[in-house]
Amino acid sequence: MIFKGSHILSVDQFTRADIEKVFTTADEMRPYAQRECITRVLNGAILGNLFFEPSTRTRISFGCAFNLLGGEVRETTEVKASSLAKGESLHDTARVLSGYSDIAVMRHPEPGSVAEYAVASRVPVINGGDGPNEHPSQALLDLYTVKLEMATRGQGIDGLRIALIGDLKNGRAVHSLCKLLGMYTKVHFKLVSPPQLAAPEEIIVALIAKGHRVEICHELEEGIHHVDILYVTRTQEERFENQEEADKYRGLFRVNQSIYTEHCEPNTVIMHPLPRDSRSAAKELDEDLNQNPNLAIFRQTDNGVLVRMALFALILDVADKVHDYVHPVTWYTAKREPVPNQ
Amino acid sequence: MIFKGSHILSVDQFTRADIEKVFTTADEMRPYAQRECITRVLNGAILGNLFFEPSTRTRISFGCAFNLLGGEVRETTEVKASSLAKGESLHDTARVLSGYSDIAVMRHPEPGSVAEYAVASRVPVINGGDGPNEHPSQALLDLYTVKLEMATRGQGIDGLRIALIGDLKNGRAVHSLCKLLGMYTKVHFKLVSPPQLAAPEEIIVALIAKGHRVEICHELEEGIHHVDILYVTRTQEERFENQEEADKYRGLFRVNQSIYTEHCEPNTVIMHPLPRDSRSAAKELDEDLNQNPNLAIFRQTDNGVLVRMALFALILDVADKVHDYVHPVTWYTAKREPVPNQ
Amino acid sequence: MIFKGSHILSVDQFTRADIEKVFTTADEMRPYAQRECITRVLNGAILGNLFFEPSTRTRISFGCAFNLLGGEVRETTEVKASSLAKGESLHDTARVLSGYSDIAVMRHPEPGSVAEYAVASRVPVINGGDGPNEHPSQALLDLYTVKLEMATRGQGIDGLRIALIGDLKNGRAVHSLCKLLGMYTKVHFKLVSPPQLAAPEEIIVALIAKGHRVEICHELEEGIHHVDILYVTRTQEERFENQEEADKYRGLFRVNQSIYTEHCEPNTVIMHPLPRDSRSAAKELDEDLNQNPNLAIFRQTDNGVLVRMALFALILDVADKVHDYVHPVTWYTAKREPVPNQ
Repeated sequence: MIFKGSHILSVDQFTRADIEKVFTTADEMRPYAQRECITRVLNGAILGNLFFEPSTRTRISFGCAFNLLGGEVRETTEVKASSLAKGESLHDTARVLSGYSDIAVMRHPEPGSVAEYAVASRVPVINGGDGPNEHPSQALLDLYTVKLEMATRGQGIDGLRIALIGDLKNGRAVHSLCKLLGMYTKVHFKLVSPPQLAAPEEIIVALIAKGHRVEICHELEEGIHHVDILYVTRTQEERFENQEEADKYRGLFRVNQSIYTEHCEPNTVIMHPLPRDSRSAAKELDEDLNQNPNLAIFRQTDNGVLVRMALFALILDVADKVHDYVHPVTWYTAKREPVPNQ
Repeated sequence: MIFKGSHILSVDQFTRADIEKVFTTADEMRPYAQRECITRVLNGAILGNLFFEPSTRTRISFGCAFNLLGGEVRETTEVKASSLAKGESLHDTARVLSGYSDIAVMRHPEPGSVAEYAVASRVPVINGGDGPNEHPSQALLDLYTVKLEMATRGQGIDGLRIALIGDLKNGRAVHSLCKLLGMYTKVHFKLVSPPQLAAPEEIIVALIAKGHRVEICHELEEGIHHVDILYVTRTQEERFENQEEADKYRGLFRVNQSIYTEHCEPNTVIMHPLPRDSRSAAKELDEDLNQNPNLAIFRQTDNGVLVRMALFALILDVADKVHDYVHPVTWYTAKREPVPNQ
Repeated sequence: MIFKGSHILSVDQFTRADIEKVFTTADEMRPYAQRECITRVLNGAILGNLFFEPSTRTRISFGCAFNLLGGEVRETTEVKASSLAKGESLHDTARVLSGYSDIAVMRHPEPGSVAEYAVASRVPVINGGDGPNEHPSQALLDLYTVKLEMATRGQGIDGLRIALIGDLKNGRAVHSLCKLLGMYTKVHFKLVSPPQLAAPEEIIVALIAKGHRVEICHELEEGIHHVDILYVTRTQEERFENQEEADKYRGLFRVNQSIYTEHCEPNTVIMHPLPRDSRSAAKELDEDLNQNPNLAIFRQTDNGVLVRMALFALILDVADKVHDYVHPVTWYTAKREPVPNQ
């Protein structure tokens, strides 16, 4: 059993029971995230939200989740200004900064850096993304979304049919989601990408070894029928050698309403780890789908707050106490449930 | 009636009754801003303070105002690092980020961008400045200052005589203030600028149509006598084609103590939206006026906190509850009232 | 007696009694910093954490200290984006920003700038480092660490033998520590540096005038024996004319375990203001000392939180009330005491 005091560095840490625990805890966070009530269970606690690579949404999502539990957030978004630039080791940075918070989230461009940092940290560390390597809270919120969306269709995750579409070579979100889904049974994966951006061999092999069905597709239309979920991704342009190389794949696969209507089963769920590239040359997920109630992309990011609250609550061992520190909401709250997607 | 749950995008939204409501609410915020007591009415609420264009004072002023009401602030100051740079639409950014806060302030360099953002946001949005277009809280704090300063002289806003001085072409603060003052009666505007930096024709026409008196002046000395208020502005250098073009107007109009003594009526109020340019080549408002008790520029920025608290309180519908969550101040507080200006 | 409402601009402000007051107050902050309990004494107070020069650790340390007392933090890390870039004077910036907080910490690259800012500020200002000039909270935490480390060895500060090693010309931490230690009696200073990076003449003269013993050394081995404390510093590369000039001194003095074993008395304390430069060409303090229990460098940064809490509590006059606002800690806390250094 992980959690109390644990670092969260990789999806490989999780058993299926761990995942279920995160999800049931996330479910319990919903009234707080939707401002039906507030909790102050972490009153006095401090999150170190350490982003050594730029990010707006992930950083704010973690900070928001901590605030929703009643805690304070100290943060850095300075990349070049840090002591790391003066030759300080990650070990020293971790030893110093871990004296300033009760828990930390860290993003850093170097694969493995967050794990290295965690070794020297005196407080639990959540990997907020270490370059192309891992971003476990993203994978968990994706799977949580799969679970919730399928539940509204009377299904579970076992037996799921999912198409993963786009840059399957560089997308860490896809890799991690494959690992998590691999822990369930009889999932049918359709891997839809140009041959040059195919999913890594070891991921495919691992899925097959666990008894899942893996189908490789190079055509979008072929890939998207007979599935429950489309998981569309953008081309990870920043991982390519140069812009010219990246441009080759721009706009290659475009999911829009007419393609959806023609090729997908009704009620096929549409997911995307966001941001989606809405520039005319890209449009891997067209905005004409915004009215489609099966577009789950914004429910997905909302779920991220719940999952991050759950991780904080489990690591800091307050999941059972959240409801003991409830207060009423005093202010006007907008309707939060984004139904339908507009 | 606007407010509860409203976006605040433009001064055009406000009726005179709305403005009075903001001002009476701002008056009630004074004891909290001056730390005579604290309120925790927004305990648990989160502000998304989203600055996609740099700003220190406006950003901190909004954040401070929200903290003074008891709420938390999550914020971004990252311009190029955001998902917008990866081709994300404002629609998507708004849908995502509005899941992370109860209300948002947004600054963005593109005119109209904040309104576009607000359409997709699920929480109320306050325009914190969309390039040369609008910055409604600045206009409100300016008018609130006019009202308070004139009140100490036994006058109201109706019948006001005001000189607007400097770059009247590019200054959004001036444009918005003209619109707000236009809602009152029989205001005498003296528009003092070089011909090339004159106020836009449509603003002048609108004021005249409403029965106000508008006088155009190209000489400073002529412009500043027989008025109640000098509203001095800096040259908006960042809006010019190049620095050379901007330099032509640097230091053209300079208000200082000797000019004030010679040409202004006693007790003429001096205002400025700040920052004032104190470099020797500029000095549109000389520092030798710092001892002049009619210099209202720092009272003006202090008033900004009150007005922003009022906007938050009205939008989130807690204006009537602020006093129900009062606590004493436990710590040493410096004398805050800046009288005289030093 | 300084403190209530005081600015903290320089170590020269402090009497020995003041210093002792800071230290006894810091001692009382330990249970809060170590999360044995929390205090909310500054609930509702706002810190303006104003960093006009990059810093991660000092900024977060101050912010954390304020949060630990229950207050909120508004902050800026924007250097070029500020109004200062538009020609605003420090006077105006101070008058404006001091309306947004109850107390401020300011870092700025120009010597004297923080003092200039403080004159116009309506709230107390702590100097968080003004270029090569002063950084009083660093000096205080260094001396506090000296005191605590010596106390575990049954000694006080009077009669201390300390070796100051490295770039003694440019290191403001060293200069300030010399000033503070100068207030005690019969300290034996060994100043170990290359001749070109020697400590300023006036510092040496002042120490001698007060009856301390000052020894100048150019060899590391000679400098480090018969002392109680090694205070090692990195070369302040950013203060050199160019990188080439700085490179001359890189790696000149390197303290490591074998040198320590051979030349130092057992239990000699090792300090460093951090960051230490762990790149292979530098390594002024080798990582092979990380297991040495006398390595006090991380206890030193932890002490910084206590000292900063003490300064806030004394300036805001809540030192005697901290314990009246105690709450239990609700969450899992990691063991914080870093013994031994790992």
